[in-house]
Amino acid sequence: MRLGAARLTKLARPTMSQTFTEKLTPKLLEYLGSLQDRDAKVIDHASPSQISAALEAAGTTLEVTGGKSTDDVLLKACDVVLKYSVRTGHPHFANQLFARADDASVAAEWLLGAVNTTAYTYEAGPVFTLVEREVLRAFAKVCGWPAESQGLSVPGGSIANMYGLLLARAHYFPEVLEEGMHACGPLVCFVSDQSHYSFLKSVKVLGMGSKSLIQVKTDAIGRMRADELKKAVAAARAAGKKPFFVGATAGTTVMGAMDPLDEIAQVCKEEKMWMHVDGCWGGSLVLSPTERSAMKGIELADSFAWNPHKMMGCTLQTCVFITRHEGALAKTNATKAAYLFQPDKEYTNLDVGDWTIQCGRRPDLFKLWVLWKRVGDAGLAARVDQCCHLARDVARRVRVHPAFQLVYEPSCANVCFWWVPPELRPFDIEKATQEQRDLLHKAAAPIKKEMQRLGQAMIGFQSINGMPNFFRLVFATADAWTDADTERVMRDLDAAGTSTWSQGTKRPLANGHANGTHANGVNGTGKVAKAA
Amino acid sequence: MRLGAARLTKLARPTMSQTFTEKLTPKLLEYLGSLQDRDAKVIDHASPSQISAALEAAGTTLEVTGGKSTDDVLLKACDVVLKYSVRTGHPHFANQLFARADDASVAAEWLLGAVNTTAYTYEAGPVFTLVEREVLRAFAKVCGWPAESQGLSVPGGSIANMYGLLLARAHYFPEVLEEGMHACGPLVCFVSDQSHYSFLKSVKVLGMGSKSLIQVKTDAIGRMRADELKKAVAAARAAGKKPFFVGATAGTTVMGAMDPLDEIAQVCKEEKMWMHVDGCWGGSLVLSPTERSAMKGIELADSFAWNPHKMMGCTLQTCVFITRHEGALAKTNATKAAYLFQPDKEYTNLDVGDWTIQCGRRPDLFKLWVLWKRVGDAGLAARVDQCCHLARDVARRVRVHPAFQLVYEPSCANVCFWWVPPELRPFDIEKATQEQRDLLHKAAAPIKKEMQRLGQAMIGFQSINGMPNFFRLVFATADAWTDADTERVMRDLDAAGTSTWSQGTKRPLANGHANGTHANGVNGTGKVAKAA
Repeated sequence: MRLGAARLTKLARPTMSQTFTEKLTPKLLEYLGSLQDRDAKVIDHASPSQISAALEAAGTTLEVTGGKSTDDVLLKACDVVLKYSVRTGHPHFANQLFARADDASVAAEWLLGAVNTTAYTYEAGPVFTLVEREVLRAFAKVCGWPAESQGLSVPGGSIANMYGLLLARAHYFPEVLEEGMHACGPLVCFVSDQSHYSFLKSVKVLGMGSKSLIQVKTDAIGRMRADELKKAVAAARAAGKKPFFVGATAGTTVMGAMDPLDEIAQVCKEEKMWMHVDGCWGGSLVLSPTERSAMKGIELADSFAWNPHKMMGCTLQTCVFITRHEGALAKTNATKAAYLFQPDKEYTNLDVGDWTIQCGRRPDLFKLWVLWKRVGDAGLAARVDQCCHLARDVARRVRVHPAFQLVYEPSCANVCFWWVPPELRPFDIEKATQEQRDLLHKAAAPIKKEMQRLGQAMIGFQSINGMPNFFRLVFATADAWTDADTERVMRDLDAAGTSTWSQGTKRPLANGHANGTHANGVNGTGKVAKAA
Repeated sequence: MRLGAARLTKLARPTMSQTFTEKLTPKLLEYLGSLQDRDAKVIDHASPSQISAALEAAGTTLEVTGGKSTDDVLLKACDVVLKYSVRTGHPHFANQLFARADDASVAAEWLLGAVNTTAYTYEAGPVFTLVEREVLRAFAKVCGWPAESQGLSVPGGSIANMYGLLLARAHYFPEVLEEGMHACGPLVCFVSDQSHYSFLKSVKVLGMGSKSLIQVKTDAIGRMRADELKKAVAAARAAGKKPFFVGATAGTTVMGAMDPLDEIAQVCKEEKMWMHVDGCWGGSLVLSPTERSAMKGIELADSFAWNPHKMMGCTLQTCVFITRHEGALAKTNATKAAYLFQPDKEYTNLDVGDWTIQCGRRPDLFKLWVLWKRVGDAGLAARVDQCCHLARDVARRVRVHPAFQLVYEPSCANVCFWWVPPELRPFDIEKATQEQRDLLHKAAAPIKKEMQRLGQAMIGFQSINGMPNFFRLVFATADAWTDADTERVMRDLDAAGTSTWSQGTKRPLANGHANGTHANGVNGTGKVAKAA
């Protein structure tokens, strides 16, 4: 923008009154500025009827009634939205695999909102087309991949994993593109039993069916066992199936497990299968010289899904799909729509829109470009290191705290642990009776509810692998959490456990939420953490 | 936000220096304020090397080098990004099916960027979960659909069309979810020969193969012929295929054609097929009492894709997929991931995350909620009416202008026309020789290039249906374009035509761009506009 400053000032106020954006922006900047406040509630936990009532108090309704609201009313409505939305930027938000958005990324997100364009052609998004290419090029280099690697920003990690399956299928069975699955025979693919549900969704979407997805056994800390993979492939072949794809995971959702990529790559090579890596969560470790040993073998993968909106702190959504196979995206997805991808326009060799399964597509990688330039390789690595360090530090504290018990040794930036009711301490899952497991299972839900009520740290709990409900503390941001936060959150968690337990969690309550329901079964078959 | 003002002011500056977002925001507000300036260039058309050089002049590089840049440098880089990005908010941007973003939508987009959350659970996005449900409920009502209708915001219209296919397949062939396509037999589906390429991409993704998509003939203005659909279904059945899905279009990409939904619904009823409507572009007409007659029959459809980021002016991406079949999204896509969709959390009956093929998902419908409340039903209808009016008005002017010739009668908010070189006037496609067609085909590309060079109106050109390249002027925004703009743009276009033609377009040039290459074939079989 090289317009004269005087002209700009004039233009910035084209009408007598401010635009709605101009009116709302100070509120948003205040909100962003307030996110570091540890005494603010992480969530002002409200029911649907409370939110609805608050909007009515602001002068509008939750319902879309077809009438018009004034800007003043809508600004008050935005206050309500900010008040009752989860403060994901709060230092104590540790409920999801994303957390506080980086300042530079928020700014870049706002720029994208102002420019409002799409990434399908150079014509429609010249700068963003170039930026996307450069970010992907830099990331391919980090992974140790060839310069010809190609990729896309995609709307989420699930879709990125689906791209991996799509490309693999078209690579080995190109006839599928014209003829469909009938031309392929009975395909099967392999993921670990800790893999993300997006693989299951994807095989359903792709017309392969849920039965085509084979779950491979994992070790005690949730990593796919290469020997079990080898066995599963052999068994599938013996059953007349056609193995073609392995979806390895770098950072499983709950345990943070990092599959042994090098061993899996070896199996894929031997068995002529495509190796995709779901690094949506843990893939960021490749950026850290200290932590990237957990990603050994990534340089051998065929495709890779990575979400910089997780550990890198980009705003949702900022997601990468990348493949080492030049031309594979185009071969799989291109339809050469005459109206959009016209060879007689300029710089069409840069158009990547036809590689995608979308049409319009947000230029999300601009956010990573700004962030990467602002903090550099070292800054990105420092984030990874700090997130992993924090998880290990929590595990260390859990080990020496009488009220807590590790469920799994920490991996990536995840720590899984129980708050153990007094009568069950010290708790040993291997020796616990079913009754004791059932009792422990009841503890987490009321603790979470109590912490939500108090607006304290948001931490997820789960019941996987047949384990009683346990907490997963996960570090998706590095710049907001200190040792003092660890102490405070563990203290709050213990206090919430003590108070809810003594108030009757252990007894069946009228309120179903407080009464753990074992929806996933606590059957004694769960994996057991090794003592450190 | 009911925090004390004094506290907020303090918190808004947590450090001695401003955040990057605070530094960038004034530039973005200036940029937004300058968009109405008609004398600004729509595009400062630059080559990749020019953009790269401009970033270097700002003190950084296009490449991600791993080093750190200062905020001052990055702010200058953002200036470059703004300067060389297409001004989609310029009144004369008419190149895509989206245009200027509405002020309220930009503000809502910024709020989403600040809050940075996801729409998969009530827990993670309480307000946005409720807002999404209400917007979809209001839209279902507008369509004349039952209150139980369910939907989702999705990342683009292509994905929305894919959801239609997914749900239809699982509806008629539920075994596909477990067994894959092998359990279904040879499925086929039907779209018009003017339909969007996303259907073709989707059948490839879904493992049905491109041959499963049957293109139905259209009439002179691009509408699917119901009698031809009926014939195509019969022919498919006779060939042993299983018809199950029709993708009708409300507003085709180039011609704006509105398929006869009521007639298609009748065929779908008779043939027991799912009726999906791709209303990504023209679906907004349902909101206008004046224009909605073109959507007659929408009340009978099974599913509907609609992009409020097109004619409604929401920022990219704001997209709706909606179905009248309660439970169909869950039945098709749910995997019941234990770690996320836990029955022992609160308000889980409101969680829609498991209906999707994504995991994290932007709460995009908040943008439509704010816009709809700000302008009301009447405001949305007025947008539609004005966009359609402008297209008809251009057609009227084209008819009486010696240099222009209509290709098709306008539909929706699209007008397709040629700039005709002097020696071909008056041009009649039906009587034109192949040589004359070839000559006309050469005109558009250099005109566009010249207008890009001058930064004038961005208008797309295409060569479909075997027609020589023609311009498609499309009105995706209503608040920025006046009669004076129509006059100016037609004058500029004519001037660019005259100057490029006289400078040698008619002769083969060394520069390939200026030399129409007939990539799509100009073979004389194209459809012909009826004289009005």
